[in-house]
Amino acid sequence: MSKIIVVKNILDANDRIAEENRKLFDNEKIYVLNLMSSPGAGKTSLVERTIEALQERYKIGVIEGDIQGSADAERIAKLGVPVVQINTGGACHIDGNMIREALPGIDLTQIDLLIAENVGNLVCPAEFKIGENAKVMVLSTPEGADKPAKYPLMFQQSEALIINKIDLLPYVDFNMEKAKKDALTINRNLKIFEVSCKTSAGLNDWYGWLSDRIESFQTK
Amino acid sequence: MSKIIVVKNILDANDRIAEENRKLFDNEKIYVLNLMSSPGAGKTSLVERTIEALQERYKIGVIEGDIQGSADAERIAKLGVPVVQINTGGACHIDGNMIREALPGIDLTQIDLLIAENVGNLVCPAEFKIGENAKVMVLSTPEGADKPAKYPLMFQQSEALIINKIDLLPYVDFNMEKAKKDALTINRNLKIFEVSCKTSAGLNDWYGWLSDRIESFQTK
Repeated sequence: MSKIIVVKNILDANDRIAEENRKLFDNEKIYVLNLMSSPGAGKTSLVERTIEALQERYKIGVIEGDIQGSADAERIAKLGVPVVQINTGGACHIDGNMIREALPGIDLTQIDLLIAENVGNLVCPAEFKIGENAKVMVLSTPEGADKPAKYPLMFQQSEALIINKIDLLPYVDFNMEKAKKDALTINRNLKIFEVSCKTSAGLNDWYGWLSDRIESFQTK
Repeated sequence: MSKIIVVKNILDANDRIAEENRKLFDNEKIYVLNLMSSPGAGKTSLVERTIEALQERYKIGVIEGDIQGSADAERIAKLGVPVVQINTGGACHIDGNMIREALPGIDLTQIDLLIAENVGNLVCPAEFKIGENAKVMVLSTPEGADKPAKYPLMFQQSEALIINKIDLLPYVDFNMEKAKKDALTINRNLKIFEVSCKTSAGLNDWYGWLSDRIESFQTK
């Protein structure tokens, strides 16, 4: 009778694939962001602004994760950077294997920065590594300041928190001090940016932080 | 050697528990709503407004689903209705079993309407029945009109779509016609309400729809 092998922990299996992705990225000196948020918080707008600001300095590629459709990839393609659309077919997050299957669509020798935009979901994406250098999350002001306390894992796992849609602050009940305090209570190393992808307010600090991270990775 | 039973489909197991919940609710003539949305779309505000408007007419109970904490249950308790907080401990949705375990916290003989507020997540909650009469979803205008096309399952599974935060329409890029058209393409029977839980605009239609549903259920 042949031995039955049971993969007990799907997260263990994912970690191994994410590590293989990471080796590929290391070989090519590619800095990889895993960008996460609730639906509609502004991930794609942030990717657009970041490409516009940094594409003369770095060669950028994008992987778009969506349950279905390719609307976001079409937005990114207009900016002239290579982009691959992952359709998860119902799954609530992207994982290491989906990234691995997307990679043949991008010439990795021509990329310094790879941005993977996750499925809009404040819960599940934080559980799955994809081979990233950093997880970065977006929280938008209309979502409310109670989100760190209610969805702690993503705040704990992220290196940077981008608080987007500050142009709406006069019209929504968002307690910025509470949001930042609660986020830092969960993760005291979290770097926080207050931005508007609509007006571009506050984005220069984000570009500076990201550039520093890319350059210290490439020269190490 | 004893026989090994494998539950192949976790959704099948959940369906059976949801059906048992449903029988309990039927015995007591309790109309049950499963309320779903992205984080911060306004589910708890909608529950508050609905209780204020209908609590003289119906005996209302609430089950709050959150990964952790009890902030929403505390908001609801202030309105003087029975409320139970489910903490999913990381899980991205509530399921039939969590509802079953919450029920001893509410005197079912004293309830006409039970509202279960799901974890904020536009993906996973739509996959799990809890024994509800109707799934109802909230979409808020800052999330954008592309959500039906990107997260179709929840729109397909819901009987009503409440488009909340219409007070923000002057300040956000939200194409109401596109949102409604795309939602109706996925689910042509979807009843759509345009409301603001902040200003109470549009809520009377929702109260009327819900009252009709409760009464036709109780008299059948």
